[in-house]
Amino acid sequence: MSAVDGYAPQMLSPAVENLVAQLTRLPGIGSRTAQRLAFHILQASKPEAQALAEAIHEVKERVRFCRECGNLTEEEVCAICRDARRDRTLICVVEQPADLISIERTAEFRGLYHVLGGALSPIDGVDPADLRIAELVTRVAAGVSRRSEYLKM
Amino acid sequence: MSAVDGYAPQMLSPAVENLVAQLTRLPGIGSRTAQRLAFHILQASKPEAQALAEAIHEVKERVRFCRECGNLTEEEVCAICRDARRDRTLICVVEQPADLISIERTAEFRGLYHVLGGALSPIDGVDPADLRIAELVTRVAAGVSRRSEYLKM
Repeated sequence: MSAVDGYAPQMLSPAVENLVAQLTRLPGIGSRTAQRLAFHILQASKPEAQALAEAIHEVKERVRFCRECGNLTEEEVCAICRDARRDRTLICVVEQPADLISIERTAEFRGLYHVLGGALSPIDGVDPADLRIAELVTRVAAGVSRRSEYLKM
Repeated sequence: MSAVDGYAPQMLSPAVENLVAQLTRLPGIGSRTAQRLAFHILQASKPEAQALAEAIHEVKERVRFCRECGNLTEEEVCAICRDARRDRTLICVVEQPADLISIERTAEFRGLYHVLGGALSPIDGVDPADLRIAELVTRVAAGVSRRSEYLKM
């Protein structure tokens, strides 16, 4: 720092600035909230902070999309598609895995799901090829009720 | 899963549940927000998610409290305490590093800071020994204006 510099208010350290920037990329997290979260992480115990970092790492390593329905799973085929008690003649088509969770919470629907992974939005450049629509057509054509081979897995 | 089980709605995979639980520990993040953030992380690219995990890891490794004022820093003594242009006869006492940032943003205060690291709250068991009050007394007694040795660092 030289004396010829103008007065520059001292801000966060580079590591903290980077954490705030990364947190700001999360949906609904503005820069003030990101800063608050960053300070919390800084003041949390090291094991607590590392548990969060590790949890993020783990989901990216372990979780994938169910080959059948597009739900999140740690297996090839998700627990719903493998569940023998489910009504395999019904498919509930949802936009996102979060929607599936909402419907599951009601404990009212006992069929299967199909997660499209988004909604059509030509203005955002999301067209049918970006969603799991072809897979849905294939499932329906193949007859969902006959797809019981996974029950034996 | 056996047929004798009652109907249990299928929820998130263990890794996702764990991420939601970790996110819920952050201040102001309820379970719905945590779930939304977890889904975002799941749908983000692997490098983007890993950048967040790495940023959390980095702050815990690199950032510590300034030996002098208690501000966050990646050095032994923070940039404010090292800054020769600061008025060393003034100390602004704040509760948290976030408060220091707010005051710095005004670009009006040119003295030094002392971060207590909390506020007295007997009901929460926070008493003077938990805050950096003794350090403040020592700094004042030693004469802040004479503590210019760090300027040579």
